[in-house]
Amino acid sequence: MDLSPRDPDWETRVEASFAAQSFMRHLGATLAHVSVGAVDIELKMRPDLTQQHGFFHAGATSSVADSAAGYAALTLFAADSGVLTCEYKINLLNPAKQDVLLARGRVIKPGRTLTIAKADVYGLDEGTQVHVATGLFTLMSVSGVKD
Amino acid sequence: MDLSPRDPDWETRVEASFAAQSFMRHLGATLAHVSVGAVDIELKMRPDLTQQHGFFHAGATSSVADSAAGYAALTLFAADSGVLTCEYKINLLNPAKQDVLLARGRVIKPGRTLTIAKADVYGLDEGTQVHVATGLFTLMSVSGVKD
Amino acid sequence: MDLSPRDPDWETRVEASFAAQSFMRHLGATLAHVSVGAVDIELKMRPDLTQQHGFFHAGATSSVADSAAGYAALTLFAADSGVLTCEYKINLLNPAKQDVLLARGRVIKPGRTLTIAKADVYGLDEGTQVHVATGLFTLMSVSGVKD
Amino acid sequence: MDLSPRDPDWETRVEASFAAQSFMRHLGATLAHVSVGAVDIELKMRPDLTQQHGFFHAGATSSVADSAAGYAALTLFAADSGVLTCEYKINLLNPAKQDVLLARGRVIKPGRTLTIAKADVYGLDEGTQVHVATGLFTLMSVSGVKD
Repeated sequence: MDLSPRDPDWETRVEASFAAQSFMRHLGATLAHVSVGAVDIELKMRPDLTQQHGFFHAGATSSVADSAAGYAALTLFAADSGVLTCEYKINLLNPAKQDVLLARGRVIKPGRTLTIAKADVYGLDEGTQVHVATGLFTLMSVSGVKD
Repeated sequence: MDLSPRDPDWETRVEASFAAQSFMRHLGATLAHVSVGAVDIELKMRPDLTQQHGFFHAGATSSVADSAAGYAALTLFAADSGVLTCEYKINLLNPAKQDVLLARGRVIKPGRTLTIAKADVYGLDEGTQVHVATGLFTLMSVSGVKD
Repeated sequence: MDLSPRDPDWETRVEASFAAQSFMRHLGATLAHVSVGAVDIELKMRPDLTQQHGFFHAGATSSVADSAAGYAALTLFAADSGVLTCEYKINLLNPAKQDVLLARGRVIKPGRTLTIAKADVYGLDEGTQVHVATGLFTLMSVSGVKD
Repeated sequence: MDLSPRDPDWETRVEASFAAQSFMRHLGATLAHVSVGAVDIELKMRPDLTQQHGFFHAGATSSVADSAAGYAALTLFAADSGVLTCEYKINLLNPAKQDVLLARGRVIKPGRTLTIAKADVYGLDEGTQVHVATGLFTLMSVSGVKD
């Protein structure tokens, strides 16, 4: 698997694009790690993010998983190409109530048009780590779209 | 397909549970329609919900789709059972920038333990309707959990 | 949704390509219906197609669903483009033991590169019809590949 | 993650159940490895298994992936419980024409009712290994069904 970036400014680009995602800010998500083909996003528990039983809403969990997978893909895209999620599938393995969710996006198969990535989400508390969700994502490289 | 509610108070229960989903409130989503096996959720465009190109973030789109599918399932559950999303898959068909997203959750196959539902999300503007996303959801009935 | 074929010979092409799928012949599957954006495939029950409890193997069910979705997409592709399944998701709704499986592939969103289709599989017996499976498929148009 | 078998005869049971899957025999698939939470299935290339361009049909690839994931789950089930695939999602990463497909099923999260597994399929030739597909599977434990 060839994971060489085509855009020398891949790191800056991912950080700038993430900063421009108002939705991530609205959730309180932050970029925890960026390397070639790999992006981690952190989400701190807040009552705003819960469903009716006080667990993280599946939508919040999926949102950080999607952004982590999408940005992992973007690290490999050409400078003039943006990223779009075509589809994804996510299994919610355990209900999560931990202090922090960590979504780890990793590229499985890079491609000119389509890139496949996975994301695993973990719930982290003092001394415990729970596997909260795992998903597979199909990301598209859209040329002519600045990201 | 037998779509008879097992809990006579299904409608009140869905409304109360939706009202208790802080995450839906945080997004600004509202319950637009509730009938047996069918729930619609509306989400008005706000900058808070967008990704880096000004479209609805896939996470926001998926979140209302997930809640619509989950509550469509809950209309059919027994009084002492809550709903949990086991997994879902969503195809994002068109980028959405419309005034309103409408997520329509519909039960495909009810079951004692697992219920399968679909959700279609439409972007609505004056005079136009765009098919934004379509997804399939596996929902679990968890007894002993009040919803 | 614009469902106009780009290749005037779309029907012949689908039939010829289906005839060239050795795997469909090996399963005993036949083309039951072809129209623009819609293809049905039929599979007669045979002990060869079962899992350990005598039901159709999920793999057999998925195989005809995949071919039905793929050929529904191919009806809309340009003459010089072949079809490839990028990914799919399928929910197996009911175990199937009926005489015939009918897989109905329908295009949901046509596109230059990616086409999204769904497939529903029904089990048909004298007088009964069971919803066996439902799935969502992402198909890619690969130019320069004869189909 | 607790991967202790509940049935002391798990290995024999998996082998007997696999031998009873007529569909696996029809494809020519064989059991290559069985351990707790992990099952590998091998499929040798034959013209019978191909689509119109001579590659393994996505249906054949998915079928061995599904059986590998299902049997990986079954190694952990109680003696009186059978396994059923509820749903799965698979990404087809590379077209496969290799001599052998190897599907590796691994349990991600065991559970009383639902078990989540992944399967990765590799194409193996002399000296090369290609990642052909990756998928996520939801398997159900059905009590009272002998497997």
